Amino acid sequence: MTGPRYTPLAAALPSTVPFVGPETQERLRARPFAARLGANENGFGPSPRAIAAMAAAAGDVWKYGDPENFELKAALATAHGCRPENIVVGEGIDGLLGYLVRLLVGPGDAVVTSDGAYPTFNFHVAGFGGVLHKVPYAGNHEDPEALLARAAEVAPKLIYIANPDNPMGSHHSGATIAAMVERVPEGTLLVLDEAYVELAPEGTAAPVDANDPRVIRMRTFSKAHGMAGARVGYAIGHPDLIAAFDKIRNHFGMCRISQAGALAALQDTTWAAFMRRLIGASRDRLAQIAGDNGLVPLPSATNFVTIDCGDDGAFARAVLEALTDADIFVRMPFVAPHNRCIRVSCGPEAEMAAFAAALPGALAAARAASSR
Amino acid sequence: MTGPRYTPLAAALPSTVPFVGPETQERLRARPFAARLGANENGFGPSPRAIAAMAAAAGDVWKYGDPENFELKAALATAHGCRPENIVVGEGIDGLLGYLVRLLVGPGDAVVTSDGAYPTFNFHVAGFGGVLHKVPYAGNHEDPEALLARAAEVAPKLIYIANPDNPMGSHHSGATIAAMVERVPEGTLLVLDEAYVELAPEGTAAPVDANDPRVIRMRTFSKAHGMAGARVGYAIGHPDLIAAFDKIRNHFGMCRISQAGALAALQDTTWAAFMRRLIGASRDRLAQIAGDNGLVPLPSATNFVTIDCGDDGAFARAVLEALTDADIFVRMPFVAPHNRCIRVSCGPEAEMAAFAAALPGALAAARAASSR
Repeated sequence: MTGPRYTPLAAALPSTVPFVGPETQERLRARPFAARLGANENGFGPSPRAIAAMAAAAGDVWKYGDPENFELKAALATAHGCRPENIVVGEGIDGLLGYLVRLLVGPGDAVVTSDGAYPTFNFHVAGFGGVLHKVPYAGNHEDPEALLARAAEVAPKLIYIANPDNPMGSHHSGATIAAMVERVPEGTLLVLDEAYVELAPEGTAAPVDANDPRVIRMRTFSKAHGMAGARVGYAIGHPDLIAAFDKIRNHFGMCRISQAGALAALQDTTWAAFMRRLIGASRDRLAQIAGDNGLVPLPSATNFVTIDCGDDGAFARAVLEALTDADIFVRMPFVAPHNRCIRVSCGPEAEMAAFAAALPGALAAARAASSR
Repeated sequence: MTGPRYTPLAAALPSTVPFVGPETQERLRARPFAARLGANENGFGPSPRAIAAMAAAAGDVWKYGDPENFELKAALATAHGCRPENIVVGEGIDGLLGYLVRLLVGPGDAVVTSDGAYPTFNFHVAGFGGVLHKVPYAGNHEDPEALLARAAEVAPKLIYIANPDNPMGSHHSGATIAAMVERVPEGTLLVLDEAYVELAPEGTAAPVDANDPRVIRMRTFSKAHGMAGARVGYAIGHPDLIAAFDKIRNHFGMCRISQAGALAALQDTTWAAFMRRLIGASRDRLAQIAGDNGLVPLPSATNFVTIDCGDDGAFARAVLEALTDADIFVRMPFVAPHNRCIRVSCGPEAEMAAFAAALPGALAAARAASSR
């Protein structure tokens, strides 16, 4: 007897995964990390009101979550000055990107992104047979001009840009993004990933109309709201596009506890303001640690700081591995020249102190290895 | 400016959704339900240990869940006497069915199911362009012979069967299902949905080897474990098939709180045994209520009782609508002749009493309407 018959596309897909989780590394190391600073998680955690709402919702989890996400969408619509019909809630931005790609991208369809940008988006594009066209960053920034120029050549279904950017932490002004929207080709949709935008300087969120059919904006409770494990993302876009998600999404896919937590987090605007201060101070702390060690911290509009280790990818990899050996979980950009850097999440002082304590030794180990 | 360009398949999909949630009905009615008995939810709720574990995990939700679901898979493998490589965990059976269909079914591919079986499976098949071939039930049971006969004609990628069955609550012996597996055509995979099997009589779980490449079994924490809102399902199958899910699944899609709750629920075998007694008693209670009103309760191997209202679909629909007016949420099978029935979830005595109080009036209202 043989196995099942996969689709030709599924049979051809590689078995690679976008990211290896820190728990996997801990199991391989047979030792826990002392500081979990690699996944752009927010160690300051969610609003205490969100924690209380989630704990209270645990006993009610025998009920399916509301498949319409009605209350959360209503609150989000108020917060964004749009209508609930402009919003779809899903299982994190990752889940929503999967649905979006499925709606638009079939085998052979062109998609434009930046080389080194979010790999999970690429995972979804490849998963539906799309063809990725990658343009280089301009220095540490994604390059709207290059993205638009490539789009003019290949007429893609989608252009992806993150603002602020991950993994470099850089940002464009919202005005720059809005100008980019005006130049998106007919029949192309701009995917604007604003996962970190609540932590960016004033004016970074693009002033685009929620009803603009040329762009869909992705937001999340994973970063500024500190709820990565709850898996709550949302997208803002034209009502026709938003309605199309209903054709394919896992309608009962949202965790009811997460729905309750996200609603409480959204309403706790005092905590959100406090969080911006906490993250800002933590960015300064990480920049100081980098500088103290003779490294260059890149300016960050996110809850992480990308640190230029001043050499090539092999050197940064050695620094990362030495940090791992010292029980500090960090990650690094995938492609050159960004892979000269390591990427470190903001977090409470205990984790910052652990990183500060481990970095000098990690640099010394990497330098010793590279001089051999 | 125009909108985005959908795939031909996405453009052609209808905007229908598999189920309307009770919250949606409550908003339309502008009144809450007094008893929530329509969605096969388990109102007895999860293990108190699972509730405690979820409440405790709320503060840790700043961390992404383990994308490998390592601890949960290890515990499930122990419970099922298989290896972790035989298990994939996902966002409910709904989510796993979506991934499975995506892996195997492309435009025009045949899929065999029963007319009136789980509509969310059909939603996914249609969503990937598959062609559904439906065979009738044999009375109140799904019909293995008919499913196999149709499969022999159309060489489907998948055959779907639920054991126990939803919406009729009937079941086959595990031996019958195991014999069915032996006759699955080459190149066809049997999807065995065992969502309710923990609540069925001894011997209902099919004695099939986890490594058998002809079958994949779907299980869930939504029913016996009372955690529908947590969205934790899992599938057991051949390691090659299980590994294929990694090519496409939302690796970071699981809620961390739900992972903790499912692990605690699985370990609380005392509660699980207690739950089987609670559900058994509640089934008896529902059967008694039906009999007291001159209706015929169908034998149930699940956490719901399907009640034959003794007339046609229009009559059962009238009963359901009168129950809704009396603030009792129930559902009914979609297709004739099953739609002569209503389907009522087991639950605590307060909800049973509310149903018992409302049913005589609902029947009277339906009879008055049908005699007009």
